[in-house]
Amino acid sequence: MKKLEMLYKGKAKKMYATDEPDVLWVEYMNQATAFNGEKKEQIEGKGSLNNRITSVLFDLLRARGIESHFVRRISDTEQLVRKMDMFPLEIIMRNTAAGSFAKRYGVEEGTPLKKPILEFCVKSDDLGDPFINNDGLVALGIVTEDELAEISRIAYAVNDALTDIFSKIDVRLVDFKIEEGRTSDGAILLADEITPDTCRLWDLKDGNGGKDDDGAIEHLDKDLFRRGLGSIIPAYEEIYARLTALAEAEGVERAE
Amino acid sequence: MKKLEMLYKGKAKKMYATDEPDVLWVEYMNQATAFNGEKKEQIEGKGSLNNRITSVLFDLLRARGIESHFVRRISDTEQLVRKMDMFPLEIIMRNTAAGSFAKRYGVEEGTPLKKPILEFCVKSDDLGDPFINNDGLVALGIVTEDELAEISRIAYAVNDALTDIFSKIDVRLVDFKIEEGRTSDGAILLADEITPDTCRLWDLKDGNGGKDDDGAIEHLDKDLFRRGLGSIIPAYEEIYARLTALAEAEGVERAE
Repeated sequence: MKKLEMLYKGKAKKMYATDEPDVLWVEYMNQATAFNGEKKEQIEGKGSLNNRITSVLFDLLRARGIESHFVRRISDTEQLVRKMDMFPLEIIMRNTAAGSFAKRYGVEEGTPLKKPILEFCVKSDDLGDPFINNDGLVALGIVTEDELAEISRIAYAVNDALTDIFSKIDVRLVDFKIEEGRTSDGAILLADEITPDTCRLWDLKDGNGGKDDDGAIEHLDKDLFRRGLGSIIPAYEEIYARLTALAEAEGVERAE
Repeated sequence: MKKLEMLYKGKAKKMYATDEPDVLWVEYMNQATAFNGEKKEQIEGKGSLNNRITSVLFDLLRARGIESHFVRRISDTEQLVRKMDMFPLEIIMRNTAAGSFAKRYGVEEGTPLKKPILEFCVKSDDLGDPFINNDGLVALGIVTEDELAEISRIAYAVNDALTDIFSKIDVRLVDFKIEEGRTSDGAILLADEITPDTCRLWDLKDGNGGKDDDGAIEHLDKDLFRRGLGSIIPAYEEIYARLTALAEAEGVERAE
């Protein structure tokens, strides 16, 4: 497989064409950003960790019947994925109130929810990725009713599978963001990445629901960077080590 | 019926208890507010117009099979309503992009929507009435799934009926806000008010879809006040006159 011209450079990844028209070459960068790019830093080792974490997660998901755009990991910082026509949506699933949700509705971080919440934001740097509801998505022609139903079905299925995966490694899956798109043969699939950049992960090792004895959240995710609480690297390494051990214990086939 | 102690003073109305436990006495005030109360003014005649407009609208809705909390109008500025246990929700229905919606998603005011949009905001002055989706309402325990289904069914039915009413008086119903609550016997009903304070109404008399020859919107609603475009009184009088003529033409029974 040959790496050809760069197609896209985002905040955390570069994407390249390859000599296979349906396959893209993804390179994970060390850049960390928060608050719509206002906070930005280079963090040695982050690209490699996220590339490896999202790869093992896509493998663990495939073993649970959830297909994605992931083809295989080809180096520490690179992977091949299927080329997709992406929906311009941040697809957010929340199992516990945290972050912007907790602030928006005035509830404490860690408040359990009576059911998982599926939220959509329209991807637009200019508009600040505005929150939108299901009627709005269809009324503005961003997706059809049928697409919305399939996108939502996949998001809930990913939540069930990820909740199972993280519970097995003593991590509370508080919330996460995914993206979805269409393959060239028309199927809607999970895409983008699943990493501690895109999930809120609280350590359950101490048995306090993800908080320490003083009530402080035990973050294993990008909130360490967002909130200036310390280096993300040991946390991301911990997540990677636990996920790898789970994949080995489950005998999951690795695409690398 | 006796007016007893004041129970509540809002931005546009005062509500009093009466000697009938299930009936409240509502007084419409002349105060106009916008931007969560930041802009505020006394406008002579506004209370009377809104009291009379919402009364004739509730009569026109009843004639179309939509019940509400409205009992009867008892003076120019006062009416009796059923006492309700209100849901803490602003229930917003949009047929055309305008106002905060148009701004949020970067679309021009007047853009038609592929379907009506039902939006909910949690009533909270402290939090700025945050927008919430259906999953969020149920997950936070604000309403149950069953309540949400009935609240939504009523909102869409009110939209169908109001769209019919306003189309008959050459007015484009762009969007509106209602509230709903439960009666003491458990029924969910339309409540609060329906006036040019709570609807966006564009004049279709000139046949340009609510815009004049220069593309300016022909407002017959509170946007005249919000946007400093002139007095609201002639516009509200026009709406009242057209609605009254419609009620007479249809032989609608008036509760006054």
